[in-house]
Amino acid sequence: MVATSEIEEGLTLLPKFDADGLVTAVATDAATGELLMVAHMNEEALAKTIASGEAHYFSRSRRKLWRKGEESGHTQRVIEMRVDCDQDAVWLRVEQKGPGACHTGRKSCFYRAVPLGQTGEAALEFREADKAFDPASAYRKD
Amino acid sequence: MVATSEIEEGLTLLPKFDADGLVTAVATDAATGELLMVAHMNEEALAKTIASGEAHYFSRSRRKLWRKGEESGHTQRVIEMRVDCDQDAVWLRVEQKGPGACHTGRKSCFYRAVPLGQTGEAALEFREADKAFDPASAYRKD
Repeated sequence: MVATSEIEEGLTLLPKFDADGLVTAVATDAATGELLMVAHMNEEALAKTIASGEAHYFSRSRRKLWRKGEESGHTQRVIEMRVDCDQDAVWLRVEQKGPGACHTGRKSCFYRAVPLGQTGEAALEFREADKAFDPASAYRKD
Repeated sequence: MVATSEIEEGLTLLPKFDADGLVTAVATDAATGELLMVAHMNEEALAKTIASGEAHYFSRSRRKLWRKGEESGHTQRVIEMRVDCDQDAVWLRVEQKGPGACHTGRKSCFYRAVPLGQTGEAALEFREADKAFDPASAYRKD
């Protein structure tokens, strides 16, 4: 058992993987601060990202490691990587190559707003309705 | 079973809670784009955040809903809320009240960098070593 002070104030990466062996990975655009995507990394994805400076994630649905952009060409070069206090999340400030990070064809996965002040079933509003690229041609169907 | 097109392209919030009943919530500083924290919301935290415009989370360690800042006074007013493509994560652009969001006493939970190009056990570097406030006086010990 590692002491909390070592995790929170230490100078060693001691990732706290969850029951599925994953940490949360948040990617923002290094230039604009826009949140591009939230994904997950297993130990291998984390190590490969640190070693190479190219974002690697672990797909929970496909149960496999994936280098971001390996199909679409829309890779992410990591400008800076940070870890949070309890080391169960990392922040990647990235340079997003190509038109976008989202598999729906948009720059960011967060293309819809949730207006505040609503109660009950919430209505959404598009902030980025148009697609920056055609997902059907960018991604192979497995 | 809701169709993928309805989740990804629809105008209704259909949050995809995980096995623990949670979605991931990412809070960034609305003015600077800095990532402040990554936390979780259950259905009630999500509904209260939307209704009130004040960030509410669900603490996994304490198993309870919590209004951010209820102890420390360091509340978060939500300027804009967004949801991602598959609706398992929300992004809060917030105005952070007080000196910081992190329970360690810093503005952001992401106060350490993971230098790139390393292999094996990774060394960290502080980016925000000094504490913006004294956590011992800001937080009650339960």
